[in-house]
Amino acid sequence: MDTIGFIGTGVMGRSMAGHLLEGGYKLNVYNRTRSRADSLVEKGAVWLDSPGAVAANSDIIITIVGFPIDVEAVYLGADGILANAKSGSVVVDMTTSSPKLAARIYENAAEKRIGSLDAPVSGGDIGAREARLSIMVGGDEDVFERVRPLFELMGKNIGLLGPAGSGQHTKMSNQIAIANGMMGICEAMAYAEKAGLDPMGVIACIENGAAGSWSLSNLAPRFLKGDFAPGFYVKHFIKDMGIALDSAKKMNLDLPGLTLANKLYQVLAAKGGEDFGTQALYKLYKEEINGAG
Amino acid sequence: MDTIGFIGTGVMGRSMAGHLLEGGYKLNVYNRTRSRADSLVEKGAVWLDSPGAVAANSDIIITIVGFPIDVEAVYLGADGILANAKSGSVVVDMTTSSPKLAARIYENAAEKRIGSLDAPVSGGDIGAREARLSIMVGGDEDVFERVRPLFELMGKNIGLLGPAGSGQHTKMSNQIAIANGMMGICEAMAYAEKAGLDPMGVIACIENGAAGSWSLSNLAPRFLKGDFAPGFYVKHFIKDMGIALDSAKKMNLDLPGLTLANKLYQVLAAKGGEDFGTQALYKLYKEEINGAG
Repeated sequence: MDTIGFIGTGVMGRSMAGHLLEGGYKLNVYNRTRSRADSLVEKGAVWLDSPGAVAANSDIIITIVGFPIDVEAVYLGADGILANAKSGSVVVDMTTSSPKLAARIYENAAEKRIGSLDAPVSGGDIGAREARLSIMVGGDEDVFERVRPLFELMGKNIGLLGPAGSGQHTKMSNQIAIANGMMGICEAMAYAEKAGLDPMGVIACIENGAAGSWSLSNLAPRFLKGDFAPGFYVKHFIKDMGIALDSAKKMNLDLPGLTLANKLYQVLAAKGGEDFGTQALYKLYKEEINGAG
Repeated sequence: MDTIGFIGTGVMGRSMAGHLLEGGYKLNVYNRTRSRADSLVEKGAVWLDSPGAVAANSDIIITIVGFPIDVEAVYLGADGILANAKSGSVVVDMTTSSPKLAARIYENAAEKRIGSLDAPVSGGDIGAREARLSIMVGGDEDVFERVRPLFELMGKNIGLLGPAGSGQHTKMSNQIAIANGMMGICEAMAYAEKAGLDPMGVIACIENGAAGSWSLSNLAPRFLKGDFAPGFYVKHFIKDMGIALDSAKKMNLDLPGLTLANKLYQVLAAKGGEDFGTQALYKLYKEEINGAG
């Protein structure tokens, strides 16, 4: 049975790594802030002191860290994964990161006969906890099949979408749909409130029709109650939109809706909203509802 | 049993009126183009020569016509409904129209002791045919209860959302969510195609997660196949967005996402797309995919 290395034991990673332990795998773990790996160590994971040490002692190395710059450091740095991983091992980056960087890691890995997948997820902390994540994978099919049993311990909708970078591109498609959709439910509910309707009554009336969406049914009720607690942080969403816009620009594709949504989220962040959940976009519209009108 | 008047037997109205006939109601009908009422007359409806004649001979008068200007003519014109309807009768406008006009009709009707509801629908031609429409109602509760049995023959999600105009406002909320969401699915799929992914594979991977929506599951597959046939016409959607933007402006509410979506649909219409279905917004992005990039 493969020994798994797991780097990045934040809210998401901790749940995901926990499912692998429960699935019977031996686990080596590393995290920048050590204390966040404590609960996994108590359950039998082995703490190692660097990404390089995890890589050297594992067969499949999974990472889920913060930003593309962290991915770059962890994979390509001096004591990083690729400098230390064994030939024949596999690396799997589950961070939402840049498609270009995913392709670069794949190429560097291939030179050392290391398999590489990009496999970002959606579903948030709850999806991670309940092993219901969507996992969007880019890379080679044989490598995907080798890692699939691990993915199946962590998620439900698991797809190989194409070559290296395709997982990240798919996640970008996902975020583009969400960003525009979030603007839509905020505007729909702001209109409803301003018009004096009961917004929850409006949701009940429209959510099963053509206006229906996961966000309308799950996030609109939260922001209407003034609940802006993060399921998914504004600051991370801004990171993702930045990657998508950058990637679209490189492909000469204009995305006016995403550009606008990103601009609105930047305003929200500038007003101190970056640690709220994404549904806090409603705050911008709420100010208007209570404003001059 | 109330005798029903039905004015406006286009694609939607014809199906809706048919359900009332099947429900055992006596039906008087009028339509600007007479031939479109023929199938109803064959099933037992009585043709009358004007909106006024229908109003004078019916207890509950239902209208579903084209634009607010048509609603105004049919209700407030010289041989219109309100000049001819009996005291104690009820009028129900199911056209998607302006909330202000709905309030005006309500007031004029009240002076003549005529009940009035605004009750626009969503669900399109299929929803009308299968009696699965969402019906969003504004007006008085006793009048709503009197008409409810008719609504239940035509739809599934039926809600009284508030006083006169509230049905129209709710429909506007619905269209605002749809307009932004449509932009979102077009941008997500344009990105996926441009990145070389299989867009149908992307839909399968993301539609059950946070990016999921009715439009993604039902309309994106259509535009990806190049199917732009109208479930709901671009020209009618532009009408609705115009009403929503006008209404929002009067309430001093800025809706940047809807403003952008409306602008894109105007471009599509200017290029000859107004008789396509709303999913044809993808054509604008598709041009870009095939363009300089």
